[in-house]
Amino acid sequence: MTDLAARFRALWDEIAPVGRDAGSGGYLRYALTEPELRLRDWYREQARRRGLPVTEDGNGNLFAWWGDPDAGDAVLTGSHFDSVPHGGAYDGPLGIVSAFLAVDELRAAGVAPVRPVAIGAFVEEEGARFGVPCLGSRLLTGALAPERAAALRDTDGIDFATALGHPPAGARPELLDRFRCFVELHVEQGRALADTAAPVAVASAIWPHGRWRFDVTGEGNHAGTTRMADRRDPMLTYAFTVLAANKEARLRGAHATVGRVSVEPNATNAIPSRVTGWLDARAAEPETLAGLVSAVRDKATERARRDGTSLTVTEESATPLVAFDGGLADRLAALLTAPVLPTGAGHDAGVLAAYLPTAMLFVRNPTGVSHSPAESATDEDCAAGVAALARVIEELAC
Amino acid sequence: MTDLAARFRALWDEIAPVGRDAGSGGYLRYALTEPELRLRDWYREQARRRGLPVTEDGNGNLFAWWGDPDAGDAVLTGSHFDSVPHGGAYDGPLGIVSAFLAVDELRAAGVAPVRPVAIGAFVEEEGARFGVPCLGSRLLTGALAPERAAALRDTDGIDFATALGHPPAGARPELLDRFRCFVELHVEQGRALADTAAPVAVASAIWPHGRWRFDVTGEGNHAGTTRMADRRDPMLTYAFTVLAANKEARLRGAHATVGRVSVEPNATNAIPSRVTGWLDARAAEPETLAGLVSAVRDKATERARRDGTSLTVTEESATPLVAFDGGLADRLAALLTAPVLPTGAGHDAGVLAAYLPTAMLFVRNPTGVSHSPAESATDEDCAAGVAALARVIEELAC
Repeated sequence: MTDLAARFRALWDEIAPVGRDAGSGGYLRYALTEPELRLRDWYREQARRRGLPVTEDGNGNLFAWWGDPDAGDAVLTGSHFDSVPHGGAYDGPLGIVSAFLAVDELRAAGVAPVRPVAIGAFVEEEGARFGVPCLGSRLLTGALAPERAAALRDTDGIDFATALGHPPAGARPELLDRFRCFVELHVEQGRALADTAAPVAVASAIWPHGRWRFDVTGEGNHAGTTRMADRRDPMLTYAFTVLAANKEARLRGAHATVGRVSVEPNATNAIPSRVTGWLDARAAEPETLAGLVSAVRDKATERARRDGTSLTVTEESATPLVAFDGGLADRLAALLTAPVLPTGAGHDAGVLAAYLPTAMLFVRNPTGVSHSPAESATDEDCAAGVAALARVIEELAC
Repeated sequence: MTDLAARFRALWDEIAPVGRDAGSGGYLRYALTEPELRLRDWYREQARRRGLPVTEDGNGNLFAWWGDPDAGDAVLTGSHFDSVPHGGAYDGPLGIVSAFLAVDELRAAGVAPVRPVAIGAFVEEEGARFGVPCLGSRLLTGALAPERAAALRDTDGIDFATALGHPPAGARPELLDRFRCFVELHVEQGRALADTAAPVAVASAIWPHGRWRFDVTGEGNHAGTTRMADRRDPMLTYAFTVLAANKEARLRGAHATVGRVSVEPNATNAIPSRVTGWLDARAAEPETLAGLVSAVRDKATERARRDGTSLTVTEESATPLVAFDGGLADRLAALLTAPVLPTGAGHDAGVLAAYLPTAMLFVRNPTGVSHSPAESATDEDCAAGVAALARVIEELAC
């Protein structure tokens, strides 16, 4: 193992147990819950050890500064600590741990920044607790109104303002103006790099994507005594929609997933009165995505008519195509001799890209699995990510 | 309104608010939880007012005795208080309330029993809390081992023995021997009576039925970045199984329902790692039921192969065809000039029928809806049920 890989492993092991579920081996690091608060404490301690002052933006996003926070023209890096339910170890934390190590690398090499470098830790990137992904970056940029964010509730009924301890501050344009660019390092969430010799890639774009809620209402009834012909069973409409979404996505080279469902009353011997499914859909082009969602909606509507159920479709979130700054991506790809790839995953970088030049680095994931305990990256590839991030910071800030 | 219908309504109103969910209007009366315990207190108070001593069988089943509990040759009636999630008001409690009123009717008419009459309140008939329907009657008869029942857990991890306050006593043959027969009055759970002039029917049989758990395991992964071709998505196998079960049941004139599902991790942006669905299947003949379940299993297995998922099917419960005592059913049908009907629903009467002559009376349900807040019966029809039950008790015990 290289020295850098060993240093990566040592720092990584400090956070590995935090929020890990013994059963699944996955992580339950929901934003502002105890495990994520422990990671935020760990972050402050790491910053303290390195003499980096930490600021908070009033929205739950943290920034550790190498250099003067008020100087402006800063290079921002970092990522997030929170996870999906039973998520992997790397999605998010890898970008923060790598940033601390990149600073260490540059200092050890005697490189000093001429511009400030900030390591960000964004809050609620996954949307797993309050339902809106990239909540922290959307608040910081003003893409989401603070009143709306404050009222978002988790499944226990706790609202975001209560979890944060105060109403979120909302847009901070004077803070955003202090950043010249943002570079987020992230574990790759597909297998594009697995088949190459490159441990690190640069992102070209994020596919347009969104979440649509399909509420199907039928008639709750007794499973044993209700004749099949008399039923209005919303589970049938739901099941048909799941299969239709898969088929329509395959036909278009797009991605569609129904990974979440809620059933009332969810009893073995009762025909449900209501079934709600959430469609996650993504495609390379906005027209393809719109066509996909429209086709699924049409098929579900037709099936609901046959099932005697009623269907409403609600767009819960929609994120347009994000083309990362082409000049910055090309510059980093040349610097690192790294391939350039699009991704289907949303990130805080996708939100910030509308406000400042933004780039992403991806670290190879041998299985391509993410949002699952099986997510992985080798220590050597993570070290390559740290080295790449250090070179990028040196290029942009030093 | 007749006097009897008014008396029914007055007694019914005493329990109507207990455990009712303000949102759905349905009932959350899970066995041995606070609402059901309140109903059991109400039951004891009703018995006390009527001078009927109450005994408990060590399994959570209650018996209020009109006459000497130890005399033997007793006529047992009654039903259960517990509900499915957001269930209707009548399923269960109607049989208990009607029994108290039937005793009142007979006493008012000066009729005295020559044999004891017992009003039973069975515990956990729906299986909504501990997963096994007719838990109380299965324990009393020895159809279920008390050690197994004691260890059943609810979703909070509380086991049945803890909820009961002690390990269940199990089979009580000496108590069963004291009953000459059991007559359970129940709201009809279909529309067979809705199209007739009869407010009350007598049951001929309970369809064979059971519950099968379909566990589908795939590979949890990121919904945005995982190519469709690389997925092993258990939600697809589940959805196909739901539609296959519906189709196979229709082809056979049987009933199949998938009304309950559990998803891990159940997140919008994650392909599930596991989806579990519960199949409730019923048919008039055992061969039809076996053929139905086998066909669904085969289709699900084939689909799992195509989806790259793995499937295991577990029989959680299976209840054979229950043919109620033909002589008793004929006698009651003649007495009441009532039609005779089979039913697809399981009942404590179905369990007890293997141990003593058993009959059921059904009270008309205009919509046929059950296991839902929309379950209904008119006060006049409920009064007709009380009158029928009083005649039956007079015939059998007086």
